[in-house]
Amino acid sequence: MRFGVLGTGMVGQAIGGKLVELGHEVTMGSRQAGNERAVAWAAEAGERASEGSFADAAEFGEMLVNATAGAASVEALEAAGAENLAGKVLIDIANALDFSRGRPPTLAVCNDDSLAEQIQRAFPDARVVKTLNTVNASVMVAPEALGESTNVFVCGNDEGAKAEVKELLQSFGWREGQIMDLGDISSARGAEMYLPLWLRLMGALGTAQFNIGVERGD
Amino acid sequence: MRFGVLGTGMVGQAIGGKLVELGHEVTMGSRQAGNERAVAWAAEAGERASEGSFADAAEFGEMLVNATAGAASVEALEAAGAENLAGKVLIDIANALDFSRGRPPTLAVCNDDSLAEQIQRAFPDARVVKTLNTVNASVMVAPEALGESTNVFVCGNDEGAKAEVKELLQSFGWREGQIMDLGDISSARGAEMYLPLWLRLMGALGTAQFNIGVERGD
Repeated sequence: MRFGVLGTGMVGQAIGGKLVELGHEVTMGSRQAGNERAVAWAAEAGERASEGSFADAAEFGEMLVNATAGAASVEALEAAGAENLAGKVLIDIANALDFSRGRPPTLAVCNDDSLAEQIQRAFPDARVVKTLNTVNASVMVAPEALGESTNVFVCGNDEGAKAEVKELLQSFGWREGQIMDLGDISSARGAEMYLPLWLRLMGALGTAQFNIGVERGD
Repeated sequence: MRFGVLGTGMVGQAIGGKLVELGHEVTMGSRQAGNERAVAWAAEAGERASEGSFADAAEFGEMLVNATAGAASVEALEAAGAENLAGKVLIDIANALDFSRGRPPTLAVCNDDSLAEQIQRAFPDARVVKTLNTVNASVMVAPEALGESTNVFVCGNDEGAKAEVKELLQSFGWREGQIMDLGDISSARGAEMYLPLWLRLMGALGTAQFNIGVERGD
């Protein structure tokens, strides 16, 4: 399948690399074609990897991944072009972290709204699915390193889109039983508001290489 | 030890009951002495249990538990009296859930502040420790029902107070390894902002009888 991955950071590189490894074709998009990190990534990832502008990546992809910084996501998707998002599954991995008041960051949107909802409202024809934002880049594409008891969450209004994303997650290494569907796109508030706890857990553990698992009683 | 438990709801009853079972003396406090639920609880819990006003409970307790509704906690603690909180460990279990805009609730305070911090600021002489707010009442006092892989979080500025609370948690059934110290009282933002995810997980699982465990990689 053809993927457009928006964003050239650790998340974009991890997801893009995994997709290429799985045999997909990937265009990594950035603000301007020729971005240094995207060019280097594409050169190393091989012939199924290419780079371009946000619009190039979004036009190329049959499925899209938002791996931009959350604070810049809506703008990046506007640059990608609503017409290039329409009808496509748009996997939103971003967290709207706001570092303007220091560390740990706050969330630029939370509580009665979420970044995923903002994106879905701004691009009503995109099939937005929030997932993977609750783990760091390496766990996203190698969840087996933490065993099979941890979970990843999926949120979105489009059941078909969520089914496609769950299948993709399984190809990344997530077992079916690890994938928890939290409901419609508003449930992304839960997944996004977990971030402040994730940041404190990272501080307490001294590593970002962790995840949570939900243990259910009888 | 003598405990003052502020709040007569499910959390207050569960914590109060467990404390009595462990041999402690407990006064359950409410807005007005003679609260129907508190009277019924004290009658059933036995001779080590009593009830009274918030001030009665706070004066009685050597250690205090805030199990009031989060939106009313500061007011309840003001009624308890700053002089009755001074120098004492104050375990804050409350979540500032705001149901005014429907369900699921939002948080009345979050992101750049937390209920625990509001309480610590309002009562600087109390030794506030946030804990147990991330699980439902029955899990709080019977964590063994979910096995030993789940976690409970502890946040506070006073190391001695946190040590006392960790000991108390162990008497409730939490193993030492399940208790994660997240840091100072500002880390309560993480523990409190997990609630929206908890609410979505409850919806997805169809039960409140669950908890999360943190799985760490190498």
